[in-house]
Amino acid sequence: MSEEKKIPYKIYLNENEMPTKWYNVRSDMKNKPAPLINPGTHEPMGFDDLRPVFCDELIKQELDNDTPYFDIPQKILDFYKMYRPSPLVRAYCLEEALGTPAKIYYKFEGNNTSGSHKLNSAIAQAFYAKEQGLRGLTTETGAGQWGTALSMACAYLGLDLKVFMVKVSYEQKPFRREVMRTYGASVTPSPSMETQIGKKINAEHPGTTGSLGCAISEAVEVATTNEGYRYVLGSVLNQVLLHQSIIGLETKAALDKYGIVPDVIIGCAGGGSNLGGLIAPFMGEKLRGEKDYRIVAVEPASCPSFTRGVYAYDFCDTGMVCPLAKMYTLGSSFIPSANHAGGLRYHGMSPILSQLYADGYMEAVSAEQTAVFEAATKFARTEGILPAPESSHAIKAAIDEALACKESGEEKTIVFGLTGTGYFDLVAYQKFNDGEMSDFIPTDEDIRKSVSLLPKV
Amino acid sequence: MSEEKKIPYKIYLNENEMPTKWYNVRSDMKNKPAPLINPGTHEPMGFDDLRPVFCDELIKQELDNDTPYFDIPQKILDFYKMYRPSPLVRAYCLEEALGTPAKIYYKFEGNNTSGSHKLNSAIAQAFYAKEQGLRGLTTETGAGQWGTALSMACAYLGLDLKVFMVKVSYEQKPFRREVMRTYGASVTPSPSMETQIGKKINAEHPGTTGSLGCAISEAVEVATTNEGYRYVLGSVLNQVLLHQSIIGLETKAALDKYGIVPDVIIGCAGGGSNLGGLIAPFMGEKLRGEKDYRIVAVEPASCPSFTRGVYAYDFCDTGMVCPLAKMYTLGSSFIPSANHAGGLRYHGMSPILSQLYADGYMEAVSAEQTAVFEAATKFARTEGILPAPESSHAIKAAIDEALACKESGEEKTIVFGLTGTGYFDLVAYQKFNDGEMSDFIPTDEDIRKSVSLLPKV
Repeated sequence: MSEEKKIPYKIYLNENEMPTKWYNVRSDMKNKPAPLINPGTHEPMGFDDLRPVFCDELIKQELDNDTPYFDIPQKILDFYKMYRPSPLVRAYCLEEALGTPAKIYYKFEGNNTSGSHKLNSAIAQAFYAKEQGLRGLTTETGAGQWGTALSMACAYLGLDLKVFMVKVSYEQKPFRREVMRTYGASVTPSPSMETQIGKKINAEHPGTTGSLGCAISEAVEVATTNEGYRYVLGSVLNQVLLHQSIIGLETKAALDKYGIVPDVIIGCAGGGSNLGGLIAPFMGEKLRGEKDYRIVAVEPASCPSFTRGVYAYDFCDTGMVCPLAKMYTLGSSFIPSANHAGGLRYHGMSPILSQLYADGYMEAVSAEQTAVFEAATKFARTEGILPAPESSHAIKAAIDEALACKESGEEKTIVFGLTGTGYFDLVAYQKFNDGEMSDFIPTDEDIRKSVSLLPKV
Repeated sequence: MSEEKKIPYKIYLNENEMPTKWYNVRSDMKNKPAPLINPGTHEPMGFDDLRPVFCDELIKQELDNDTPYFDIPQKILDFYKMYRPSPLVRAYCLEEALGTPAKIYYKFEGNNTSGSHKLNSAIAQAFYAKEQGLRGLTTETGAGQWGTALSMACAYLGLDLKVFMVKVSYEQKPFRREVMRTYGASVTPSPSMETQIGKKINAEHPGTTGSLGCAISEAVEVATTNEGYRYVLGSVLNQVLLHQSIIGLETKAALDKYGIVPDVIIGCAGGGSNLGGLIAPFMGEKLRGEKDYRIVAVEPASCPSFTRGVYAYDFCDTGMVCPLAKMYTLGSSFIPSANHAGGLRYHGMSPILSQLYADGYMEAVSAEQTAVFEAATKFARTEGILPAPESSHAIKAAIDEALACKESGEEKTIVFGLTGTGYFDLVAYQKFNDGEMSDFIPTDEDIRKSVSLLPKV
């Protein structure tokens, strides 16, 4: 009890306790993640193959399965200091409301204007682009968290940014668009008339409201046809998980300060950027046989790549212009039914996490959206923070774990990732508040159909 | 230089360095703020006069001009720990962008879901209502920061909350409304058909989109005609400034840790809740003759109560149902022209700050909204945080000070209050981004007219 009292509501790290290196979990994996391959030749993509699209230094990070730690450049550390360390919060109020003996901690990444963890990789990717002397970057955005984060990073470093925003989001999320514009980004609804692929799609599908796959294709086209531009991506890639390891490293440093050892670590999983970052150092210990933790991915029941997908090579984008990645996938033609957690509506999953899941180092569960919003509302009312729908998947799973502890009397320590805030998701909250939200779960037939269209490798 | 290096980007306080008492600046004022008076009899309002409307303990705080410190109850301290201490940030990036030798610090109060400092008083007012055994509270909200904050506090304590939201805001700010509903508040567009005054106004002005004055009247009517309910207010009152002193106490504790003495302290001023809180302990030192600081209030040029108003008794509300307060005022019938900083569109000013201003302890300046949004955008791009329009008035004044230092070569230390975030103000940002924002300044005739209607006291 007296020891218990010493743990504050928030465990902050001092500035000098901040991690100064990213951790590369691949270095401790016996089975490395499968390489990206060329969709035509099926040969692994090397440095030169990737150069037209990505920045040089980022390609090196992408391909490096061996180096355990990468120094974080000073300029990035300085930027991190504007919003990091992010708080690790002991959820005393939620525990009390649940009446659970479990100890719940969450790492809150929504404490910056972009409202999510995406900023951790956005600043890194923008930094290396600037170092390479590039003029600017292109990217796509759906829900808008990644586009917002990258806008902030590019404003800070003085880089041009062109964001292709899925047209339906551009129109339905005007506030996200305005945040990006306030940070100086140019935001174009996709499909646009500014690219060949955009014109083609507009001609073939008049009045289309766009898709993430189309926006990726436009962003890649602009990056590869304009001098001094490259394309960047906010999830799935190995480099992104490397940068996001800052989340896990800070979490571990904060827990270590108080001698806290988690029993279970929970994160939501769309492309895997948050989960991969949160678990990185813990997974490292597990891979090296030093410690054991339960590690749980939570995905929406509407887009269940881990729990109902297959582990196979697939396109990263629905437009099928990108390299193939080996991952748990529902098929790049899978169209998730409406789910408000836009950031989790991705057909595939990080190759690193896919390999770890295939090798039995992780578990996965899925959650339905009404149950997720119930958990979100409970969390908001007790812990004060209005969570993003994506993050709320992790809340739902953490609450379930805590209630199981109440049943069994176990005093487990649960750590989960709270990736962001829900300020731009209030249309979804309104639906839930009005009792108009429903659940959508794909049928086996839906999944069989899209999986049957996987490329033959 | 080596000393300089020691100051981190953010100065956090440890949990045990958190203030445990609020500071009552009135205790050090030689000229106390003038009492609230009854609009009919012009007699000072005493404890019993205020009981039908306000909670008992809050009335005691309201009327106490002598007690220097009030213990913060443990339950409120626990709540504060969920989002406090708020960061005191050294604006290194803004300084660099401005090329100024000045040292700029800001106290950031937007680090909680309500997005502003309003939560500091909301939890206190809700706590005392709960302690008194009340069932619930009523209030009004315009811009929505206060309503959001109070919703969070009432959810935490299990109190009913009925918010009357000015109809035009209810319709134009549906997301604010949904946050409040997510926290369990009932939100009614005002004027409603649920109160006598609402029905009367709807009958007299069919199709009216409401006003703050009308919403206050409705909230007061519901509080006084329902058993177990009281009315609460988020600014202007002495009790609110008492609770908000937590901002200044933390700021001072953080500065003291590094031996930093500010030359000038800047805050935006609407009703005065943020400014009064931020400056409280510094003003105390100034009043006791221990230190000297320049203290600057920044108000919108569209609603300039300090810089162009008169110091006189006036109604606190446009509906003229509340007590009279002696304050700098433009007259309760003054209708500020459109300005996106809704939180600063108040005709009057805190009686405490009014007395201090009248006695020469503070300065005041006004700023036009396009210049404020220019400052906001510069701040967002360099410091990362998307500021609320209200807060951006302080940013504008701080930048002006820093640029004056650049001119003169002075290395002044500037501290300003960053009261909140602009997530719900993106319609205004969009106008600014599109070059469609303009400035509105009342004419002398406008002000003369509304001031001529002041009550005769």
